[in-house]
Amino acid sequence: MPRRYTAILTLVFAFALSALAQDDQLKTASKQELDIIKVLVAQEDAWNKGDLPAFIQGYKNSPDTLFVTHQVFRGVDGMLDEYRHNYPTKAIMGTLAFSELEVHSLDEKFAVVIGKYRLDRGKKEGGPASGIFSLIFEKTDQGWKIIVDHTT
Amino acid sequence: MPRRYTAILTLVFAFALSALAQDDQLKTASKQELDIIKVLVAQEDAWNKGDLPAFIQGYKNSPDTLFVTHQVFRGVDGMLDEYRHNYPTKAIMGTLAFSELEVHSLDEKFAVVIGKYRLDRGKKEGGPASGIFSLIFEKTDQGWKIIVDHTT
Repeated sequence: MPRRYTAILTLVFAFALSALAQDDQLKTASKQELDIIKVLVAQEDAWNKGDLPAFIQGYKNSPDTLFVTHQVFRGVDGMLDEYRHNYPTKAIMGTLAFSELEVHSLDEKFAVVIGKYRLDRGKKEGGPASGIFSLIFEKTDQGWKIIVDHTT
Repeated sequence: MPRRYTAILTLVFAFALSALAQDDQLKTASKQELDIIKVLVAQEDAWNKGDLPAFIQGYKNSPDTLFVTHQVFRGVDGMLDEYRHNYPTKAIMGTLAFSELEVHSLDEKFAVVIGKYRLDRGKKEGGPASGIFSLIFEKTDQGWKIIVDHTT
């Protein structure tokens, strides 16, 4: 899928530029940062295709993965069902866009990402939604995966 | 302060017991878990004495420390002013209680804590408040400190 590849590259490049601009010090986005941003870009892409199983791939496939909103959900097994229940159609899923993404590296294996999301959709489908999130990423054998998602 | 010491020990013991009870497997609270819980117990204690500077000690003294609510605040320097502004009197600070604390170790240097808080105070002082939080702790030279606080 060359078009998707181009889109990801463009976003990663934009992120690298904004990382450069955000600091007075000259700072380039690290491989860790870029790898993590790519996961989020792929999630956005999957969501906007209505592909929930692909979206879920961003999370570590573990019963210990945590999703914190107004309450705490545990494990990815129930997560797909929960998403399918809350977003039964592509129209209700709407168009997801992440913004103001910041990757804060903890060490080689863990990183925190904070950012904002916006969901655009018709009034009939629940109307637009937006919020803020903090994610903890772990570098697993399958690449960088979210192990804690706190979204509000 | 022997009374405070006893209170902390009691809480740590209660936490160790609940850690044992939460799992079917026999699981004892690790030193890391206990050290982190002690920081939160000390924060609760400081808050309920109206001692904001002591409460702030739970955070890493760094401009990179993040406090995420409906927006993102950066650095502990402004945090004390912000708290003093929002909680000008001991009555408005009310009585803080953390509950359902879970420590999830990432590695020797980082851990995630999720939990709930409750603030009891009179209607005139803003009424009770409650919510959920996720915290990222770092083991610093000054002990375990919060580097990211997402509270909602």
